[in-house]
Amino acid sequence: MVNLSTATAVVDAAVEEAEEIEVPMCIAVVDEGANLVAFRRMDGALLASVDIARGKAYTAVSLQMPTADLAEVAQPGESLFGIHTTNDGRIVVFGGGVPLRDGGTVVGAIGVSGGSVDEDVTVAEAGVAAFEP
Amino acid sequence: MVNLSTATAVVDAAVEEAEEIEVPMCIAVVDEGANLVAFRRMDGALLASVDIARGKAYTAVSLQMPTADLAEVAQPGESLFGIHTTNDGRIVVFGGGVPLRDGGTVVGAIGVSGGSVDEDVTVAEAGVAAFEP
Amino acid sequence: MVNLSTATAVVDAAVEEAEEIEVPMCIAVVDEGANLVAFRRMDGALLASVDIARGKAYTAVSLQMPTADLAEVAQPGESLFGIHTTNDGRIVVFGGGVPLRDGGTVVGAIGVSGGSVDEDVTVAEAGVAAFEP
Amino acid sequence: MVNLSTATAVVDAAVEEAEEIEVPMCIAVVDEGANLVAFRRMDGALLASVDIARGKAYTAVSLQMPTADLAEVAQPGESLFGIHTTNDGRIVVFGGGVPLRDGGTVVGAIGVSGGSVDEDVTVAEAGVAAFEP
Repeated sequence: MVNLSTATAVVDAAVEEAEEIEVPMCIAVVDEGANLVAFRRMDGALLASVDIARGKAYTAVSLQMPTADLAEVAQPGESLFGIHTTNDGRIVVFGGGVPLRDGGTVVGAIGVSGGSVDEDVTVAEAGVAAFEP
Repeated sequence: MVNLSTATAVVDAAVEEAEEIEVPMCIAVVDEGANLVAFRRMDGALLASVDIARGKAYTAVSLQMPTADLAEVAQPGESLFGIHTTNDGRIVVFGGGVPLRDGGTVVGAIGVSGGSVDEDVTVAEAGVAAFEP
Repeated sequence: MVNLSTATAVVDAAVEEAEEIEVPMCIAVVDEGANLVAFRRMDGALLASVDIARGKAYTAVSLQMPTADLAEVAQPGESLFGIHTTNDGRIVVFGGGVPLRDGGTVVGAIGVSGGSVDEDVTVAEAGVAAFEP
Repeated sequence: MVNLSTATAVVDAAVEEAEEIEVPMCIAVVDEGANLVAFRRMDGALLASVDIARGKAYTAVSLQMPTADLAEVAQPGESLFGIHTTNDGRIVVFGGGVPLRDGGTVVGAIGVSGGSVDEDVTVAEAGVAAFEP
């Protein structure tokens, strides 16, 4: 389950990784219902990342896939091109959002924004690794 | 200044108070520019409170007053009736949002939602008391 | 006509009045088509006033009446109750928005926010007085 | 700091450059928190530019980069494709938004719209050159 305790552990681990790579990030965790549980903006993080981090978490849980995977199929000419304007613009189609799983079941997600896409993914995965459902 | 460290102290104190009165709450802290810094949803908190807590924090900093004060003047027949639909619906006109001050200057705000208005105000004020600018 | 020159004169006069009464304000001027021509936020003005000032100007030109007049008819039980949620929330139903007229014709509007409603109206009227169509 | 005085100097310089190249522009300046401080629409400027100028300023401060740089990475197939629909559509991914800096720190931004992208960038840079933090 994603509750405040497990979400906080996820955010803590993500912040630790972001500090390690020295990139200020915004980090959001949502639960199974795509509702926000925890959010933290590190000092100096981009303001645009407040919304993008949350959007990535929303996207990862609501589509049950990492947003990095979505990036491929959302390109022009690909099968899901245009999905980024659905759901009132909350869908983000680049990496940094990753589902949180209990066994095979998606029970929430983390969204990270603030660095390059690779950096965002790295920090998100550090958060996922700390998830204990 | 409202940064992640001072905002976290505010949220911690608010959560502690909410646990004390045994009401699960959503708690949001925004900085001087009305941008979100920290957010926490306690287990069992109302889903609507995610948005309301953030709206209360937005309102308190952007109008530089507790949302409880706004409640009076926003009633039908009073001078600011209708303000609750401005600013893309982010204005909340009942108690639970309180500015964070550095001396006389508003530098951010806390917004709390989840209980009765009185409970929300109590928890918000516990957060404010822990603010060290 | 409301053009940049006449709008600037209106904003200048409004700012002068706001300085006179020592209340920092946001001031917006829109043209006949309800499109923004000039906007100024005085130092220390409420952040919420950015949106409200523009909304008042929008309202005054699009309904061709001062927003203070609208306040009466927008109350519960009155003929236009509910109008404040139309037009994507851009309608503001309290004083501080005043049409700019060329003879009897509405050619634009000023919207002011930042003080009490009475203060906002005073500043808006100072702006209107400086309008030379 | 971006306040009304420094923002006005930036807008004045941008307008002067726009007059020099004879292209009517919309010019917006936002502060560190992405909140609007000053806006001017020159006579004859495109109506769509009201929103685009403000969006460019929002984008430049909230992503701490010129929108012209964002243009490259936001193309289909590039790392941030899709970012233009985040943040409630306020992100603009072509040139004309430039951060205002105090030393290395982003403290606000100017957004310009009305001409070709090159013209917008030229006018924005004229504004930036007049910024005295």
